[in-house]
Order: sequence, then C-alpha cells, then structure tokens
Amino acid sequence: MAITSYIRVYYMSTQKAKAIKTAISPTRSENYPEWYQAVINASELAENSPVRGCMVIKPWGYAIWENMQQILDEAFKRTGHVNAYFPLLIPLSYLEKEAEHVEGFAKECAIVTHTRLELQDGKLVPVSKLEEPLIIRPTSETIIGECYSRWVQSYRDLPILINQWANVMRWEMRTRLFLRTSEFLWQEGHTVHATAQEARDETLKMLDVYANFAEQVMAVPVIKGVKTPDEKFPGAVDSYTIEAMMQDHKALQAGTSHFLGQNFAKASNIKFTSKEGQVEYAWTTSWGVSTRLIGALIMTHSDDDGLVMPPKLAPVQIIILPIYKNDQEDQKKQVLEYCNEIKVALEEQVYNHRQLRVKIDNREINAGERTWDAIKKGIPIRVEIGPRDIAEDAVFVGRRDLSPKKKVSINKDEFISSAVKQLDEIHNHLFDRAYLYRHSQTKDIATREEFEKFFSTDNENAGGFAVCFSTYGEAINDIIKPLKVTPRCIPLKTFEERGKCIFTGADDCQKVIFARSY
Amino acid sequence: MAITSYIRVYYMSTQKAKAIKTAISPTRSENYPEWYQAVINASELAENSPVRGCMVIKPWGYAIWENMQQILDEAFKRTGHVNAYFPLLIPLSYLEKEAEHVEGFAKECAIVTHTRLELQDGKLVPVSKLEEPLIIRPTSETIIGECYSRWVQSYRDLPILINQWANVMRWEMRTRLFLRTSEFLWQEGHTVHATAQEARDETLKMLDVYANFAEQVMAVPVIKGVKTPDEKFPGAVDSYTIEAMMQDHKALQAGTSHFLGQNFAKASNIKFTSKEGQVEYAWTTSWGVSTRLIGALIMTHSDDDGLVMPPKLAPVQIIILPIYKNDQEDQKKQVLEYCNEIKVALEEQVYNHRQLRVKIDNREINAGERTWDAIKKGIPIRVEIGPRDIAEDAVFVGRRDLSPKKKVSINKDEFISSAVKQLDEIHNHLFDRAYLYRHSQTKDIATREEFEKFFSTDNENAGGFAVCFSTYGEAINDIIKPLKVTPRCIPLKTFEERGKCIFTGADDCQKVIFARSY
Repeated sequence: MAITSYIRVYYMSTQKAKAIKTAISPTRSENYPEWYQAVINASELAENSPVRGCMVIKPWGYAIWENMQQILDEAFKRTGHVNAYFPLLIPLSYLEKEAEHVEGFAKECAIVTHTRLELQDGKLVPVSKLEEPLIIRPTSETIIGECYSRWVQSYRDLPILINQWANVMRWEMRTRLFLRTSEFLWQEGHTVHATAQEARDETLKMLDVYANFAEQVMAVPVIKGVKTPDEKFPGAVDSYTIEAMMQDHKALQAGTSHFLGQNFAKASNIKFTSKEGQVEYAWTTSWGVSTRLIGALIMTHSDDDGLVMPPKLAPVQIIILPIYKNDQEDQKKQVLEYCNEIKVALEEQVYNHRQLRVKIDNREINAGERTWDAIKKGIPIRVEIGPRDIAEDAVFVGRRDLSPKKKVSINKDEFISSAVKQLDEIHNHLFDRAYLYRHSQTKDIATREEFEKFFSTDNENAGGFAVCFSTYGEAINDIIKPLKVTPRCIPLKTFEERGKCIFTGADDCQKVIFARSY
Repeated sequence: MAITSYIRVYYMSTQKAKAIKTAISPTRSENYPEWYQAVINASELAENSPVRGCMVIKPWGYAIWENMQQILDEAFKRTGHVNAYFPLLIPLSYLEKEAEHVEGFAKECAIVTHTRLELQDGKLVPVSKLEEPLIIRPTSETIIGECYSRWVQSYRDLPILINQWANVMRWEMRTRLFLRTSEFLWQEGHTVHATAQEARDETLKMLDVYANFAEQVMAVPVIKGVKTPDEKFPGAVDSYTIEAMMQDHKALQAGTSHFLGQNFAKASNIKFTSKEGQVEYAWTTSWGVSTRLIGALIMTHSDDDGLVMPPKLAPVQIIILPIYKNDQEDQKKQVLEYCNEIKVALEEQVYNHRQLRVKIDNREINAGERTWDAIKKGIPIRVEIGPRDIAEDAVFVGRRDLSPKKKVSINKDEFISSAVKQLDEIHNHLFDRAYLYRHSQTKDIATREEFEKFFSTDNENAGGFAVCFSTYGEAINDIIKPLKVTPRCIPLKTFEERGKCIFTGADDCQKVIFARSY
C-alpha cells in the first residue's frame, strides 16, 4: 500500500474506531483530550502529583526526556554553546526591570516569603519573613542578565553562548500533563553579542537546531515562522517559533527562539567597550524547549492502541518477547539463549550514532499481556520468539507504526541486518504520515467568510491551519477571538510575500497561519 | 624522585610558600579558606549570586558537574536504576509525617506562600495566598514516598530502583561555594524493597558506587563507614558515609547512603502484599551526592597555583598552546597546522571509555598568559608548540600535578602514543599524594589526654583523623564539642573490633574516627 493511501486509511480509522477493539479508551475520535490522558496512563509516562499543577515524570517518560536532552545538548555544543547553572530564586526587584516582561510573567508565579518553620500548637507555621520576597524562576532572563552585566566588559568577552538545563515554575490555572504544568523541565539558552546581526543570526541558527530536532529526531514536521507582535515573548523584539499540528488539527508551539534586541541589555545594564573604544549596549537572545515536546510527540504519533514513539527517542527501540512453556525447562533455556544471542547481535549495531537499545521482556505474565504492554508503551519494533521460530531460524516481527495484527516472520540474520533500516523506515513513515495529515488540514484562505466557515464550530471536523494574508492585533481580534483562533506565526518560507488583508483589506500584509492551539 | 619524597616536598612547600611566587594569593598556608575562594575565582568555577546563599555555577564548574553526572549516571544504570522526576514543591503536611525528619529539615527551608504578584502603588506585592504553604524540597523522601505508596501494591512491584537529578534548597546561614549553599544540585536515589536484607544490601552497594567514584574518578581517597546515631540522617536507621580528608586535614562527608528501615514506609504508608499474601510495610533506602563533590575535588588536589583537576573529570584533558609570531603568517599557519594534526591524533584515542578531550587555545593573548590560565584552570596536560618544536618533531609538555617549571620536550609521536598513559599517571599521582597525606595526618589514639592534645588549638598543625575506641552522644559531647570535633564515622574496615572507650572507659565500643569537618 502506498504511503498516501495508508495515511488515508489510518486517519479514516479515527472515524470508524468504534467498530475496532482498541487498547485505549476513549479513542481519539470519541474524546481527544481524554484519549491523550489515557495514552499517558497506559504508557506510564507521567502522572499528576498531589501538588497542584505539578507532575511526576515516571521512568518511561523521563527516559524520553533524557534522550531528548542528550541529542539537543550535543547539537548545542556543536554550535559552540556551553552549559552553566543560575539560581532558582529571583529577587522581586529584578522582575521590575523589564516592564513588558513583568507584565507577561509576574501574574502567575510561586513566591517565597519565609525561610523557617516553627512548631506552634502542634502545627508547622512559616516564620522568618524575607525582607524582599523571591520568586521561583518562570524564565531566567533577569537573573542571568544580572550576571552578564558583570561578566561582559569588552568586545573580547563576546559572544557569550550559554545554555541552562533547569526546572521552571509558572502558576498555571488549568494544567495538562506535559502541555501545561506549573513546574516543567526545559533548557534556556541565553546569549550576548556585539552586533544586532550576530544576535539575529544566532536566533535563527537555534530555530534551525529546533526544527531539525523536531523533524529528524521526533519525526514531527514543523513550520518555522515569526510570531506576530501580539503573540511574542514579553520583552522580545522578535520571537521565532516552530509550530506543529496535532491529530486534532490544533497547533502546538514546540520551541521558540527570541531576538531580544537591546531590551534586556538595557534592563540589566549589559554594556561593552567596542573595538573602537565606544561603550555600547549588547544584543541578546534567548531560546528554549521544554518537556512540552513530549506532549507534542504523543499527540502527533500515538493512536488508539497507545503511545507510538519515534525510534530515535524510544528508550527501548527493539523489544524481544520470548515465548515458552514455563514448565518445560529445556524449551525455556533454548528460547532465552536464542533471544540473548539476537540481543547481543543487535546491540553491536549503531543507530543515530548510538548503540541500539534492546530489551528482553521476560516477566512472568502471559505473552499477550507483554505484547500489549510493548504496544501501549510505543516500542518501535517487537520481536516474538518461540520454539517454532527457532526451528525455522526465524523471528516474528511487529512494527508499532503498523497494525498490531500485521506481524511477519523474517529470517533471523536478515532481521538483524535490517533492523537499523527498519527503524529508519518507521521514522520516515511517522514523519510522512504526520506531514500528509498536516497538509490535508491546511488551507489557503482568501476571504473572511471562508475563514469563518473553516473554523465554524458547527462542523466537528472543521479547522486546521488557515493560511491567509492578514494584519494582526486589535484590528482583527473581534473576528478571530470568538472562533478561539490565534495567529500562530508568519511562516519564514513566505516571509517576502505581500497581499491584502482578508479581514480589513489593508495592503502590504504578510501571510499568517491561524489555528486553534494548545 | 620517589612518590613519598615528592609528597613530603609538596606538603612541606605549604610551609615555606612565601618564598615562592604563586598564582594564587593567599596560599594554603597563609589562609586556607581564602585560598579556596581564590582558587574558585581564578579557575572561574562559580560565584556567589546576589540571591543570598545561592551560587552561579559557571561553565568551567558546570562542565565538571556534567562529567560527574555522566559517569555516576552510567554507574546507577549499570546497577539497575532508572531516573524519574518528582515535584520541586512539597506540601507542609507531608513534612509532618516523619517526626525526626521534620526536626532535621524544617528549620531551614524556603516557603512558598503566595502565587500571584500585583502592582500596588508602583510596587509588586504578593497576593493569592495559598491555603497550605509549600516548601521547596530540601530532600524528597516525603513527596516520593507519597508516590510509592500508590505505586507499590504487591511484591511484584518491588524492588523500585529510582534516582532523581534535581536542585534542592536548604536555607543555610553561613554559605560557601560548593560546600554549603542554599540551593545545590544533586542526585537522590530512592528505593523500595521487600526485605530488610535487600534494602541493606542496596544501601551498601550504592556506598560502594560512591566510594569507587571518589577514588577511581575523582582520585580522592575515602573511608567508608557508618555514622554514629547522633550524626545520622534524620529518620534513617543507619546512615553510611564516605569521608575524605581535605588539605587542611578537616574531614568532608562526600556522599551518604541511608538504610531507612520501615520508618519512611510507615510515615508514607508504603505497603505491599507479600508472596505469602501478607500485607507488610516495605523497606526503603535513599542515597545522594551533590555539587559539594566539586568542593571536595578542589580542596583535595589544588595547590597554590590554582585548581588541579583529576584527569577523568577535566572538561579539557590536554590543552595545546601554539606559539608563533603574530606578524609571520607562514609561521602561524605552520604552527597551527601542526597543532591541529596533534589534536586530531589525540582525539582518536580513548580514555576512561570516552574520546580524549583536547583543546587548542589560540586566543590573542600572550603565551605566558595562556599557560597560566591553563594552570589556574587545572588542565592536566599542557602542550606548548612553537617553530623550534616543529623543527625537532617534538612537543614541549607540562603536567599540572608537577611544578609549572618542570616541562619536558618529547618526540611528537611518542607524546601522542603516551598521552593516555600520562593521564593515568596523573590520576594515580593525585590519588597517592592525597592518600599519603591522609595517612600522615591520621593517628590511633589511646587516651583522652592524647586526643585533646591532637586537637589542641594551640598547635596550628594539630588535628586530622583521630581513631579511637569510643562511645558517642551525650556521654562525650562535653569533651569533643569544645574541641569543635565531631565523630565522622565508624569505619566499616574495623567494624567488628571492640575495645574500651578512651573517654568513659565503657566496654565493648567500636572504633570511631573523629575530626573537625566541613
């Protein structure tokens, strides 16, 4: 079956899911938000903690994050960055330095006011009030800016290219695992440059790092663009973004890279003496991705049987499921030896510059349970091995991107030597599927009526990415807000194109993508 | 010169440092605490932040921590552990569950009481008071215990072997970079077992992981022991420790592994149904090391010229310093090509399972400055290369563990093929030097008088590790407290030995190590 027709059947299956028994309930078509939560539960990625809005990232979910970290960290270092660590707590007065910034972040934050507990009448009570309250970082521009103002004196100190892996906190009202949590894990790059051009180049370079990571590692196609002014990072001159489309055709902002101009340099007093002896404000950037990427990964690839993991991020890429009768010791021994031999041979191979990650699941539960556990957890390749397979010098292989029923018997050596190729195929298949889905749900729109019809809430399947020439801000808010739609970005690909705003008729507008979003 | 005599000279040099010009001022003998701070400044490891007690870990310091993390993480995974992530904030009520624990940690902690800021009269003011305050984790037993109480139902769910890499916060009054800071980075392992024996084995296994890491990676000799009851972790049954001796012969606790018995299982209600169908409380452990290890590393190896890094943790293991006349383009080109050739050849080699980390320092500052920068930053091997070396097909090599003046010309190929061996030699030399120093400063003590003389403050060079049969707690506090000495541990090596307490005459006491400490 050609990829395109496969995709059609795959996405059509969303519509007739009730007829087929699935491992996840509800299905995507029945209730998308509940399906998302059910996939996370079934794959044991994370759970809500008793602390409001904070999540527990369980080992399977954290292993995905570790793989993301490792690959991104290598990319940051390859592009000349180093890591450092700055304080968790920020004095209130720092926030006040950048007016837009405080407006954007101060609304929702965790505030530390006391530093001691005392037992009073059998109850712990906060005492030792701080003179100046501290807030848990929602992002670190202000605290890092203070350091940079001391570290930067001369053009010889530039550029500063530092990244930080850290936890941050934003007191969100409505939270959802990975997508929006009060505490989340992320990386934040903060760089300082001598010229605007160099800072702008850095901003775009890191946007490319993110886009490549999304597409080549996560198998998630993204659109690179710049945020419209009303959607940019508080305090930035320009915010660049990568936008992905989820399976409910909503947009998800997967990473951002901000050109901060001299705004934060002025707020934090980051100045340097140029080669020519002039004292100038520096130019800064910041860029980040977070555990939200795991949400993007789930909602892009997973299906009604559970998580589907892109091979490069899967904590286990190939799972071997030995099948034997527990009371037959000889059979058990033979099967386990055969499995182990295959494991060793696979682990000698390299995929994406790393040793293949292979596991034998030999738990004392029945084979069906182990298979469905591997499916729900999204492991790219399953290999079932029983006495009959051994007799035929074969293995029985199932791929997570195909139907659970579609399994094929492959000669053992052939399987071993083709394993890396198969992982590549799965990656490409996931990417193509998501790409074609996005393509099918993206529409060029020429009139306001068409736009309103596209996002009409009467039609359950309406919506997606609407692409049109448009202005932004107050002039169109009355039109798009009732539709619960926001401008996602001005795509870089069509950045030079100009046309008439479909809403206001204004001339000289750029193409904007609109969508509902996470 | 034999190692032992070298050591003698090395440590004697502490006494006559004033005669020699050193890169760090003050020297160790002049003012040890200030020397420590000066080494950190000169090597750009970290700095105090404007947020009280919180540090900024600068790129050079953070790179050491990344290397520590990577090697420890591999060791944790090799011993069957996985990583996860738990919330930063802990509800006050959780702390109250374990009485000893709250006593030990609640005194000093950062307390979040509000979740919103509002601008009132031009000033940001905390609003939206929380019903129950939250504290920033000082350690995570209680919050992780809550999860485990839900995750553990049956013996089939055990063991749970989870580690977390995280930041923690303890509101310290007197802080010192790396050694004692309000916020620090660490890992905390938290495991659950079906039997006491299994939990005890785990505790000791992780103590071994730490001891091996200290000795084989950090080149820091440590003594494995168990804490006396008055020094153990609040809530533990037994706290195991690795204790190292710094160059001022104070002790530093470098890592701890706690056997928690059923104390926390009872506090958090972690129960399981055994194979036999009985509902029982589980047995738990916790173990951790922190950025404090960087403090231990500095104070064990560094000298009056700055940081000395053990080769396995050095962010740069070999630094190449090209020397040429800036106005002679041909010479410059020739030297840089030769340097690059050597760099490539070195990077093909493997040390401690990793590619050698080599850097060319080609900054436009004079050669002397670059050399001293490499010395102060503690890079194990320096290679100076100028036109004369090229003519002789040689390189000019200096080792950080030897005098800055001691440099030797070595044939290029010979240097390349011996580089890994030299790094090993440096590691061994650092370890031996520290081991012999500790040995020279450790004394078996038989009487109270001898003990008091050993720690007498009259004698500037007095002190070190005093080993004696002793009881602990109230019975001896009046004797040891005025000397500012604490029991460091009961060494595992002499755990079975028994004798009379040198202070009270009590029978059947174990050998205890006493020292002043960080």
